[in-house]
Amino acid sequence: MPRIQIQMLKGRTAEQKRRLAKGVTEAASEALGISQERISLIMLEVEEDQLAHGGLLWCDREVKPPI
Amino acid sequence: MPRIQIQMLKGRTAEQKRRLAKGVTEAASEALGISQERISLIMLEVEEDQLAHGGLLWCDREVKPPI
Amino acid sequence: MPRIQIQMLKGRTAEQKRRLAKGVTEAASEALGISQERISLIMLEVEEDQLAHGGLLWCDREVKPPI
Amino acid sequence: MPRIQIQMLKGRTAEQKRRLAKGVTEAASEALGISQERISLIMLEVEEDQLAHGGLLWCDREVKPPI
Amino acid sequence: MPRIQIQMLKGRTAEQKRRLAKGVTEAASEALGISQERISLIMLEVEEDQLAHGGLLWCDREVKPPI
Amino acid sequence: MPRIQIQMLKGRTAEQKRRLAKGVTEAASEALGISQERISLIMLEVEEDQLAHGGLLWCDREVKPPI
Repeated sequence: MPRIQIQMLKGRTAEQKRRLAKGVTEAASEALGISQERISLIMLEVEEDQLAHGGLLWCDREVKPPI
Repeated sequence: MPRIQIQMLKGRTAEQKRRLAKGVTEAASEALGISQERISLIMLEVEEDQLAHGGLLWCDREVKPPI
Repeated sequence: MPRIQIQMLKGRTAEQKRRLAKGVTEAASEALGISQERISLIMLEVEEDQLAHGGLLWCDREVKPPI
Repeated sequence: MPRIQIQMLKGRTAEQKRRLAKGVTEAASEALGISQERISLIMLEVEEDQLAHGGLLWCDREVKPPI
Repeated sequence: MPRIQIQMLKGRTAEQKRRLAKGVTEAASEALGISQERISLIMLEVEEDQLAHGGLLWCDREVKPPI
Repeated sequence: MPRIQIQMLKGRTAEQKRRLAKGVTEAASEALGISQERISLIMLEVEEDQLAHGGLLWCDREVKPPI
């Protein structure tokens, strides 16, 4: 513990995932005063047709801000 | 918020996913009295060998009701 | 299956939860063409200090739209 | 109910998944005194670049104990 | 890893939770051929008005099989 | 999106939660190159008898490193 889970859109590079894991783990370790070794993190990546905001599938949106 | 997550068997068409996102978001918006724009929804799709009922993998079942 | 999970702010009435369960289950059943009896739904309710948007705890926000 | 979810590294054989579903469901049924038919179980499998311990992606580790 | 999550109705005794954690961890360890020390398990307990089957809140059911 | 979920032991102060939300959101925003306003984060807090490592409930452990 703690167990972190990040749901995000598919398509990130390995380098982005590397920085995401490192940065989020460091931040959690600092805030909670625990060793980074205690923290596990999983990324659940979804396709644009598996995600909806306001009832609209992301793949159907005309304007797609970076998320 | 709210954040909705639907775990379901893989294999739905884009049109089914479209109706699922729209219908579920509308229902949540109405029941809770909040704007649809506030609601995010994710579909986690699993294969038949990643799902079990009563200890039996779905892929090993002889009779498979629609789920 | 499907298994639905709704994460939302604590404080809803029993009647709102009743309508939420009924409406969301009906919508999922219609969209996916499966029996309602196949669908399970869980509500995970969180406090205002367990939720953050844009890095700010909900309890620290001055303006709180209904979510 | 209960709804069990197991997040694990991708790469297990169908036979391992079969034993996992059977064994975990039996154990839960015995401990809680409920019928196995009541229990659903889902496996969420992740790649080595979607998992991190101590802030390091699993794919970047030199030593990888079996997990 | 693996990370196990069990969503279940509130009300279990400490002894039941003890047996649940032990039995499920053993079964996962055996099936996947990994050390029990690698496995973390969390129980998310819900109230009867936070759970629905077939669109009906569990608290509203007349007949309630053990779950 | 992204949707972040942190499962952790109950008992943190409001200030720790404030720093956790802020730090983790900043780190995710930087790593993925997206606006912090896009990121939602939920903390699921569990009791010591709802968590197990290696099959042993945390409340039953004699030695309890900070987690």
